[in-house]
Amino acid sequence: MYLGRFLVIAPEYGVYRVSSRSYPDRVIREHDDGSFAVVPEDSYDNPYVSYSCLRSAGSGHVIGNGSHVDPVAEKIELGYPARDALALALLAMDFEKDDYDTPRIAGYVDSEGESYVATVRRDGLHVEAVEEPTLVATYEEDRPRAFDFTAKSAEEAAEKAYDLDYEHPVAACAVYDGETSFYNG
Amino acid sequence: MYLGRFLVIAPEYGVYRVSSRSYPDRVIREHDDGSFAVVPEDSYDNPYVSYSCLRSAGSGHVIGNGSHVDPVAEKIELGYPARDALALALLAMDFEKDDYDTPRIAGYVDSEGESYVATVRRDGLHVEAVEEPTLVATYEEDRPRAFDFTAKSAEEAAEKAYDLDYEHPVAACAVYDGETSFYNG
Amino acid sequence: MYLGRFLVIAPEYGVYRVSSRSYPDRVIREHDDGSFAVVPEDSYDNPYVSYSCLRSAGSGHVIGNGSHVDPVAEKIELGYPARDALALALLAMDFEKDDYDTPRIAGYVDSEGESYVATVRRDGLHVEAVEEPTLVATYEEDRPRAFDFTAKSAEEAAEKAYDLDYEHPVAACAVYDGETSFYNG
Amino acid sequence: MYLGRFLVIAPEYGVYRVSSRSYPDRVIREHDDGSFAVVPEDSYDNPYVSYSCLRSAGSGHVIGNGSHVDPVAEKIELGYPARDALALALLAMDFEKDDYDTPRIAGYVDSEGESYVATVRRDGLHVEAVEEPTLVATYEEDRPRAFDFTAKSAEEAAEKAYDLDYEHPVAACAVYDGETSFYNG
Repeated sequence: MYLGRFLVIAPEYGVYRVSSRSYPDRVIREHDDGSFAVVPEDSYDNPYVSYSCLRSAGSGHVIGNGSHVDPVAEKIELGYPARDALALALLAMDFEKDDYDTPRIAGYVDSEGESYVATVRRDGLHVEAVEEPTLVATYEEDRPRAFDFTAKSAEEAAEKAYDLDYEHPVAACAVYDGETSFYNG
Repeated sequence: MYLGRFLVIAPEYGVYRVSSRSYPDRVIREHDDGSFAVVPEDSYDNPYVSYSCLRSAGSGHVIGNGSHVDPVAEKIELGYPARDALALALLAMDFEKDDYDTPRIAGYVDSEGESYVATVRRDGLHVEAVEEPTLVATYEEDRPRAFDFTAKSAEEAAEKAYDLDYEHPVAACAVYDGETSFYNG
Repeated sequence: MYLGRFLVIAPEYGVYRVSSRSYPDRVIREHDDGSFAVVPEDSYDNPYVSYSCLRSAGSGHVIGNGSHVDPVAEKIELGYPARDALALALLAMDFEKDDYDTPRIAGYVDSEGESYVATVRRDGLHVEAVEEPTLVATYEEDRPRAFDFTAKSAEEAAEKAYDLDYEHPVAACAVYDGETSFYNG
Repeated sequence: MYLGRFLVIAPEYGVYRVSSRSYPDRVIREHDDGSFAVVPEDSYDNPYVSYSCLRSAGSGHVIGNGSHVDPVAEKIELGYPARDALALALLAMDFEKDDYDTPRIAGYVDSEGESYVATVRRDGLHVEAVEEPTLVATYEEDRPRAFDFTAKSAEEAAEKAYDLDYEHPVAACAVYDGETSFYNG
């Protein structure tokens, strides 16, 4: 099954995996400020394929599949509860205007507080605190659901997400208890 | 089980039932403009117990458990998609600031288009198009889920909802294919 | 000139005056929690004439002409910057749906931080930090502008606002350096 | 005086001028779909310097200084009133997180309906229908005000805006009565 981009968000960790049929030549890189970005190895004309996918915000980290990651993080830095930062950014920026109405997905991982998973699709907006590992993807698994996944470090979570049995893996990254890691296969 | 206030939203109908432990002496009344309101038989000091619970908006009807019903309907009248009208009003007005953090629940029923169910709780915001009858309540059943309920008219839906095996029924109303009805037991 | 309801917001104080042609028999009362509400001496059928007009929120106070005062205050209590709390509540609840498209006006007064004035009309939304006393009203003066007004206490501000040369005064209230006062003429 | 990026919005036209001290080597180009974008002649690391600056939406056009132009246009396409599309996108995306807290500015130009000017700064959010030519800029003139400017075509407006006596012009574009034009000096 091809899920596109997906997240698994749990109270103590979050992991993001990029899978792509159309744009496989991308990697995750770390910027000077410690944030991670999905960037093309070659230059592309599509604004949806290069973005921050993981960055710190408040006492936690924001993780997601597009340019909404920055507005979410910035509102949390201004004092918004994570639920509100996620809801406002996803509502305003909405699903991607490509051929598939690709959803925007995001999570907030805070080992000191509550972690959240979120998605916006043409037919819905869903932001929810997580009690257990929860999966949401751009295709197929587009409604958050409980998911069987365990990891004991950011490194392990990123590599394990990359190796999950879903098609066309490109790269993955994770935050676990405040530590971050990425894996480009 | 005590659910508090709850909605069942399906593509072709919507039903709202008021159940209350604290404020049982209320009824649903119809205003001159055809909208329904939950009103106290006596006068209460609590702003959360008297409100529009069902009113037309655009090509459909908005239904819900509080003063957010009006802003949702007004944004739909201004041209917002139902998903956005529900999300914005629920995000801005948020859960009720009573002793229970009572959620605000709402639905949009449009037999010509898509029907939506929505809720805001302290730990989440959820707006979703419905494909089948879907239940959401203020307590216990506070995440929308598929629910076994059928009706063939607004009258039948309202009375059937009133008679459901949940505690402390007070009143119910429904819209079915554009027709509305209320039932005060 | 008849301004309807109006605010004067300055960095260290805020004052609200109710003026009304249609509903003159109202007073401002203080609730047990210290907040002020505009309430009818008689009972009215109009939801726009009874509401919290002044209440504390975070390190300051929210002041305004309607039911939006509570959502603004509640978002500030959740951590929102005042600018965002005002913008979101006013955008979502919008101008009043009466015969005049009456604007909602609001202010946030924080002697420790920045004070804000805000208004939403059918044709605009305006939220702005104030550097000097700034007037905004529901009618005529519906765009915030600098205004010549001084007071050295909440009591003085409320009474002075009541006595301003605008028609049909009903009541006024003020917050000055954290102290509140109301005046019913 | 250096204004940075600025807009002049009038009921029948809108014009945007890019001025830049730091990134002068940019031009405005037209995409296949008729929209205009500000693009670097060389490749830059700064996400704020390459974006859609003018595109059609509903019965009008959205014009502005950043990536918020697309979400504004997309909400108008979904049915939002222009005022709401501008307010929501600017509130959610907020001022730019560069060294200057650079505001996001935007306009909606609709010769069949109302035209709007909008800006978000750290200390305010301002969306307003325009009755006359109105200027707003990222620096100095950061509060919308009436401005003396006339043009009789998009071509004339773009060139005239480029030639205005403000420092460091880079490029300009305009929409007049539905016709668009850009000028790169």
